[in-house]
Amino acid sequence: MTIPGPDTAYGSRRGGLTVARIAHLAGVSAPTVSKVLNGRAGVASETRRRIEQVIQDHGYRRQEQTEPGTPVVEVVFQSLDSPWALEIIRGVSQVVRPRGLAVAVSEMCGQLTPDDAWTQDVLARRPAGVVAVSAKLTEQQTTQLASRAISLVILDPSGEPAHEIPSVGATNWNGGLAAARHLLELGHRRIGMINGPAELLCCRARLDGYRAAMDAAGIALDPDLVRVGPLYVDGGRTEAMALLALPDPPTAVFAANDLQALGVYEAARLADVRVPQDLSVVGFDDLPLGQWIGPSLTTVRQPLLEMGATAADLVLSLADGRRPEHHRIELATTLVIRDSTTSPPARRTATKHRRR
Amino acid sequence: MTIPGPDTAYGSRRGGLTVARIAHLAGVSAPTVSKVLNGRAGVASETRRRIEQVIQDHGYRRQEQTEPGTPVVEVVFQSLDSPWALEIIRGVSQVVRPRGLAVAVSEMCGQLTPDDAWTQDVLARRPAGVVAVSAKLTEQQTTQLASRAISLVILDPSGEPAHEIPSVGATNWNGGLAAARHLLELGHRRIGMINGPAELLCCRARLDGYRAAMDAAGIALDPDLVRVGPLYVDGGRTEAMALLALPDPPTAVFAANDLQALGVYEAARLADVRVPQDLSVVGFDDLPLGQWIGPSLTTVRQPLLEMGATAADLVLSLADGRRPEHHRIELATTLVIRDSTTSPPARRTATKHRRR
Repeated sequence: MTIPGPDTAYGSRRGGLTVARIAHLAGVSAPTVSKVLNGRAGVASETRRRIEQVIQDHGYRRQEQTEPGTPVVEVVFQSLDSPWALEIIRGVSQVVRPRGLAVAVSEMCGQLTPDDAWTQDVLARRPAGVVAVSAKLTEQQTTQLASRAISLVILDPSGEPAHEIPSVGATNWNGGLAAARHLLELGHRRIGMINGPAELLCCRARLDGYRAAMDAAGIALDPDLVRVGPLYVDGGRTEAMALLALPDPPTAVFAANDLQALGVYEAARLADVRVPQDLSVVGFDDLPLGQWIGPSLTTVRQPLLEMGATAADLVLSLADGRRPEHHRIELATTLVIRDSTTSPPARRTATKHRRR
Repeated sequence: MTIPGPDTAYGSRRGGLTVARIAHLAGVSAPTVSKVLNGRAGVASETRRRIEQVIQDHGYRRQEQTEPGTPVVEVVFQSLDSPWALEIIRGVSQVVRPRGLAVAVSEMCGQLTPDDAWTQDVLARRPAGVVAVSAKLTEQQTTQLASRAISLVILDPSGEPAHEIPSVGATNWNGGLAAARHLLELGHRRIGMINGPAELLCCRARLDGYRAAMDAAGIALDPDLVRVGPLYVDGGRTEAMALLALPDPPTAVFAANDLQALGVYEAARLADVRVPQDLSVVGFDDLPLGQWIGPSLTTVRQPLLEMGATAADLVLSLADGRRPEHHRIELATTLVIRDSTTSPPARRTATKHRRR
C-alpha cells in the first residue's frame, strides 16, 4: 500500500481530468468548475454536486496552482470541550510553528463527520494539510481534499480508517491490558470497566486489552462489571453508581478515560466509598487534572503531545509530496501509578499489607 | 479617543510614507522594504531594524494590497496549559467561523510578550486580526501590526494597555467583591485570599474587590491572610498550606482562580481539614472542572466564551475599517454558589444553622 502524493486523488486515480474536461462532462463552464475546486460561493448546490461527482468518478489533474494556499495546518475536533484537545493543539503547534505555519482549530459540534460548511471553508482556504481528530470523513470529503492537494491525517481514528488515509493513534489495547494487570497484581479480582461508546475503535481496543488481562489471570468476565457510557464525567458517575449498587460490587474500576474516572470519584463520594481504600480507580489519557485531584489518579498515559506532533509531521511530509514509510503509527501508552490504586480491602485486612 | 482604522498606524500618524520613501530614508532598495513589510526572510537583522525604525517614526501608507492576507484570526496565549484557553478559542471560533475564517492558535511559552519569530510569522501571514490574550505587546510590535493593517485586540490585559489598543476583559473588581461578600454573609470573619502575581491587572482588581467588601463589613484586613502565588494548582496548595498553618487559620479562602482553588482543596486534604465544613473555598473563572470535583466549587464566573466572542467581533470590526463605539469592554462576572462554601464551624455550632 502506498500513500498517494498530494498531486493525485486518494485511491487508484493517477491521471485525472483537467478543469476543461470536468466542465465538459458536468455541462458547465470552466470558471464554475474553478469556483467549486476553490470552495468559492455562487454555484447552485445541484451544479456543485454534479461537478463533485465528476471529480469523484474520474479524479482531477491539478495543474501548477496559480495562488498559494493558506500557510496553516487545520486541526478539526469533534468538540473542544475536553482538556485533551489542548494537548493535541500544543503538539501540532510544536511541529508547524518552526516552519512558519499556524495551527487553525475548528470543532464539529460533537459530530464525527464535519459538515459541508466546514468542507467548503477548508477548500476555500487551501491549508497545507488537515489533521482530523477522531473524525470520520466521508469518501467525498477525502476526495475533495485530495483533489485540491490538501493532505489529510486522521488522529486517533474513531473507526477503521479507509486504509489509504494515514493515521496516528496510541496502543490502546496495551493500555487496557496494563491497567487491568496493575489491578490484578494488587490482588483485585472483581474489576469493573466503564467503557466509552463501542463505535469508537480506541474504546473497543481498551476493552479488549482489559479482557485479555482478565483471561490471562484465569478470571471469567462478569458481564455485570462491564458498562458503557459517554466519555465525560457524567458518564463515569452514572455507570460507577450502577457498579457500586451491585450486590457484590467491584473493588476496582478501570475507566476508559480520565473524565470518566473523575465521575467514578464522585460516585464513590456519594456512596461513601473511599478511594483507594475501598475502591481503586484507574483512568486513561493522563490529563493534567489527574495530578490536581485528590487522591491523584493512577492512569494510562497517552502521549497526546507526541501524537499531535507526529500527525503534524506526517501531514507536512504528505504536503511536501513525500510518502511516509508508515501510514499507520501507534505511539506507546504507559501506566502511571499514583494514589488512586491499592490492594483490595479484604486482602489488606488478611495480609496487613497496605501500599500507603 | 478614536480607534484608528486598519489603514493607519495606531496613534497620531495619518499620512505615513510610501515604500519608496521608506527605502530612501533607510538607505535600502524598495524590494527590501517590501520583504520586511511582509515578514519575509532574507533581510539582515540590522537592515530590518533600520527599516522598522523608519516605519515606527514616520508611519507607513499602505497602498491597495496586491495579495489578500490569510483568512484567519490569530489568537496568541501566554501558554496553552489551562482549560481556560479552550473556552476562549471556542468563543472566538463562534464568531469567525460563520465568516469563513479559521482560528489560528499560538503560545508564547509563558512569556507576556511574543518573540520576534512570532511577529515575523504573523506579518508574513497577514491574518485578518490578532487577539492577544493577557499579552503585553511592545510598541514596535503594535506598530508593525498596524502598519500592515492587521487589527489587534487585547483580551484580559495583564497590564494597563496602551489606551489606543482595544481590549476586552471581565469585571474582576466586582467579582472579588461578590466572592468576599458571599463569605461574609455566611458569617465568616477570617477570610484568606490567595492572589496571583501583582503585575497582572486582573489579580490586582480581584484583591481590591475583596478588600472593599472587608472594609464595608468593618473588618480590618489581617496581612497574614493575604498571600500571593502562581495561578496554578501548586500555587494554591503552597499558599493554602501556609494559611492553614497559622495559629489562627482562616475559616474561608478566596482563591484568584479555579486552579488555585483546587490547590486549596489539596492543602485541606493534607491538613485533614474538611471542605466546606471546616474551610469554605471560593474560586474564580468557573472552569468546567469546578463541577467535576467534589465538593463542587463555588466560584466567580468569568464569561470566557463571551469574552472570546466579543474580542473576535471587535477585531473583525476593526479589520473592516469600522470604529467600535467602545474600545474597552468589560463583561460582567457572576457568583456561582455550589457546595464548597457554608457557614464557619463556630457559627454553625452556635446557631445550629447549616446550609447543607
